[in-house]
This record gives sequence, C-alpha cells and structure tokens, in this order.
Amino acid sequence: MSVTATRAGARRPLPFDLQSYLESRTLFINKGLDRFLPKETVKPATIHKAMRYSLFAGGKRMRPALTLAAATACGGTEEAAMPLACAVECIHTYSLIHDDLPAMDNDDFRRGKPTNHKVFGEGIAVLAGDALLTQSFEIAAQAKGWPRYSHQDLILELTKASGSLQLIAGQVADLEAEGRKVSAADLKYIHERKTSALLCCSVRLGGMSANCTAAQLKALTDFGYNVGLAFQIIDDILDITQTSEQLGKTAGKDTKAQKATYPSIVGMEKSRKLAKELTERAFASLKIFKGRAQALEALAHFLLVRDK
Amino acid sequence: MSVTATRAGARRPLPFDLQSYLESRTLFINKGLDRFLPKETVKPATIHKAMRYSLFAGGKRMRPALTLAAATACGGTEEAAMPLACAVECIHTYSLIHDDLPAMDNDDFRRGKPTNHKVFGEGIAVLAGDALLTQSFEIAAQAKGWPRYSHQDLILELTKASGSLQLIAGQVADLEAEGRKVSAADLKYIHERKTSALLCCSVRLGGMSANCTAAQLKALTDFGYNVGLAFQIIDDILDITQTSEQLGKTAGKDTKAQKATYPSIVGMEKSRKLAKELTERAFASLKIFKGRAQALEALAHFLLVRDK
Repeated sequence: MSVTATRAGARRPLPFDLQSYLESRTLFINKGLDRFLPKETVKPATIHKAMRYSLFAGGKRMRPALTLAAATACGGTEEAAMPLACAVECIHTYSLIHDDLPAMDNDDFRRGKPTNHKVFGEGIAVLAGDALLTQSFEIAAQAKGWPRYSHQDLILELTKASGSLQLIAGQVADLEAEGRKVSAADLKYIHERKTSALLCCSVRLGGMSANCTAAQLKALTDFGYNVGLAFQIIDDILDITQTSEQLGKTAGKDTKAQKATYPSIVGMEKSRKLAKELTERAFASLKIFKGRAQALEALAHFLLVRDK
Repeated sequence: MSVTATRAGARRPLPFDLQSYLESRTLFINKGLDRFLPKETVKPATIHKAMRYSLFAGGKRMRPALTLAAATACGGTEEAAMPLACAVECIHTYSLIHDDLPAMDNDDFRRGKPTNHKVFGEGIAVLAGDALLTQSFEIAAQAKGWPRYSHQDLILELTKASGSLQLIAGQVADLEAEGRKVSAADLKYIHERKTSALLCCSVRLGGMSANCTAAQLKALTDFGYNVGLAFQIIDDILDITQTSEQLGKTAGKDTKAQKATYPSIVGMEKSRKLAKELTERAFASLKIFKGRAQALEALAHFLLVRDK
C-alpha cells in the first residue's frame, strides 16, 4: 500500500526495489531451468543430479537477471528472453564446475556448499559441466528467432562468448598467470574474457530476444563490458576483504595461489575507484533506453556495492 | 587408366574404392577443420595447440565421412555437408579427450600418441575438450539452413546426440558399470548412447544438409543406429584380439578395468555374428537411395571388417 501511495505522490522516479526484483526473477529463472533440464530421476540419474546440484546451489542469477532486464529495456518481454537467460546460466554454472576441479582452481567450496567434484567425483563433475554446456545450446535453440536475429545469431553469440577466444581463453590465461609476474594489461585481458565476455553476452542476448535495434545492441555491449570488468575487480577486492563464510567460497585464494589481482597490481584504493568509474560508464550507456533501464541500472549498482 | 577401362566395360557396378574415398575425404575434412579452428598461434596459443593436437592426431574421420556420404546419398553436395561433418568430428574429439582423463578411463595413449592431458596437463585437456564442444556448435551454426531443416533443427540434432540423455549418458553408465555385473540390456544401453547416437547424428546431419525427405531421414537413422552398434561390438572384440600397437591405443583395457563387453557377456562368436547381422540390417535400409549410397555401404562394410 505504502509503495502505491509513494508512487502516486512521487515527482522523482520510485527507487527501484532490487531485492524484490531479484527474488521474483530468481523464481522465474529457476522455474525455467527446472523445465528445461531433465529431472533428477531421468536415467542416468547421477548426471542429472550432478547438473542440478550445481545449477540450484543458490547462485545469485545475476547473468540471467541481466538478460531479462536488457530485454525489457529494449521493449521486449521476459518470457521471450527466458530461454536465453537460462542458457547463459547453464554456461556460467558449467564454467564454475570445471574451474573448481583439482586440475584447475582446486576449490572445495562454492556458494557455501561442497563443489561438484567433492560430491560426485571428478569424472562426473567433468561430465556434468559438459552436459550443462551442451544443454545451454539446446535451450538457446528453443528461443524464439526474429527477422533481425536468427537462431544462427543467437547460437553464435553464445559460442563466441564462451569459446576458446573468450571465456575459455580467460581461464587458460588465468591458469598460466599463476605464480608469474602479470602486468595490468595481462590482467585486463584475463578479466575481459573470464567475466566481461559472458556478462556482455547476457545483456546482448536479452536485447536480441527483444529484436533490439543496432544502436540498442551497441549500448548493451558497452554496458555489459564495463559492468563485467567492474564485477571482476570487485570480486578481486572481496577475495581479500571478506571471509570464506561471507563469500560462501574460499576467500584469500588469489593471494594464496599468488594470483595477480587488481588490488595486488594497482592497489586497493585505485581498484575501488576503477570499479566505480566503470560502473558510471555503464550507467552512461543506458541513456538510450529512456527510463526503461531501471533494472539494468540497479543491477549494475548492486554489483558494485555488494559484499559477497 | 585401368579404372576408366574397367568402368567402360563393366556390366556390374564398379567396386567402390573406399581407400581413395577415405583419403580424399580426410583431406577435405582436415582442410575444413583447419579453416574453422583458430590457428595455433592465436592467443592463448596453449588452448589452440591442445585443440589441434587431438583433432589432427590421425583420426580415421569415419563420422565426418559418413556425414558426407549421407549427403551425396540424398542428392546433396559434400560442400553443404562439410560444416556439419566438421562439427561432428569436434564433438567426437572432445569426448575422447575427456574420456581419456585420469578421472575417467585414465588412458595414456590414443591413436598411437600420448593423450591430450599427458601432453598439456589435465586442466588444459578439460578446457580443450570444452572448447572443441563449443566450437562444434559454432561450426554447425555456420552450415547452410534449408526450408526443411533450419539452424534450430541442426543444433538440436547435435545437442540431443551429445547431451546428457545420449553421448554423456553412455559415458556415465559406462563409468558406473565398471566392476559391476552388467546385463546384455545394460550393455546395449551404453553402446547405443556412447556410439550409436553420434554415428546416427552424423548420417542424419548429412541428410539434413541435403534437404532430405522424411523417408530418407528415417532410412539414415536406421542405418546409423545399426552401424553404430556394430561399430561398438567390433571395438569390444578388437580390444581383446589386437595389441596396443595394432590399435594405437591401450588394448585389453576393458578386461583390465573389468568392463562388461559384448564378447564377455555373449561370447566372441555370437558377438561377431551380431555385428554382421547389424551391418546387414544397415545395408537393407540403404535401398531407398537407389545406388547412390555406395559410399555409405562401403563405410559400413569397412567398419565391420576393420582390424583397428
């Protein structure tokens, strides 16, 4: 009631209620993922249990939320964007499962729970990642195509963001950077690929699901790129400032693995400033959406000020 | 010269020269794969070296050859089928890299060379598999769509054959069957998924690239299914009868890992008979192509009588 009253009397825009936005969109996305993925009882049960274990481990659903928000910013519907939002979340989850493997980052905890390979064993964890990656393209292929963006475009958008020149390139460069002297430029290369690429793809796919214009797609690309970089800088900062309990994953692991991070290269204060600048640049690119990008703006702000 | 003379005077069809067919198609496929994949020098070089190491390790290119042969059987061109043939080979190679990992079959040799993780390490091997899987969809999305088969159909064909209900299901069931008592029905379940699914997909995609009719697609499905099962039974037999040198991969590993195989369950003689029956069933389904399926027939025969 008070919300309605405030809205009626307000001269400036109602403050965006991100918490209830995220709660309702998480439910919406989870419902979609549950519908797209084989049930836990489907044979062979182990693989579907393993896929669902990581997919429903309490992720923040930031990427699919960005997809939905980008779709509405472009005048589209969340329903049309939903398959693509789910596809992006499957890719994100697959990459986490594989990154956590002993042969990579060797992490025992993720989102406060034992990692996939700790529960199901390494073999199944590799296969669960493979299956989620494959499932992602299956889900994306079921999205509605448009005259402006065909299924071919949607699939290529996903493969390019997650392939050997972007997401996987970032993980390779990250693996190879451990224990080595890394420049700020090297680190930017890693972060652009490990984080920005898929974030950028998330918002672009949202726009494409809304049959957006070329100018809108350009704005979403700039937004996603900058938010992605800011996101990763904040991740680096939180790895140092927060405890494992606060993060739900192993804290301090960058320092332990002698990994280069923004704070370790340019210092903590400059890192915070940079993340803020990038977020402001992201805000600036939303002007084209003329007030329809409230959710995108709120999400970018949240990613900057989050504490986990 | 003698070939031309024979052809001119022959009353019955010229015996199909499979060896030169396979040699020329391997060159054609290798050229396509080389074009689709980032060069070894593209950053990060490690991942592209690792992807190419396994992709160009001397595989027999049976699956892509089946795709090309199915396309010509349906009156299509090899050029139109080529991207799909390459996509199938990328999926096959990714599955070998991941299956060979220590957490799975733990194999040190494949095609007479050290396996991917022995050369590049486990982390890169996992990522090289991931990258080839992703690349496969990127390549398939670049194939020509048809009114009868859209990009959506082509992608779904690939995802279904390689997803958690088929290719990955087969590997999961195979992992879970080790050291356990396995029935003939269980083994059929594994083989249908581990081998038949992708073989079936290979020929179906070839047909789809030629805009084939529903009846032709049905014939290709039956052909692929039966050839796939025969292929795996022969693999089981060769694992027992051949040496590692002959196979180019570790022989006798099924027995060592206490893996159920056709020979171990139904006996060697019955296994050979079954493979022959399945191949004959595959031949029978080729009638619809009225003499245009010589290459498919020769490939199926070769897969039955091969010694490695």
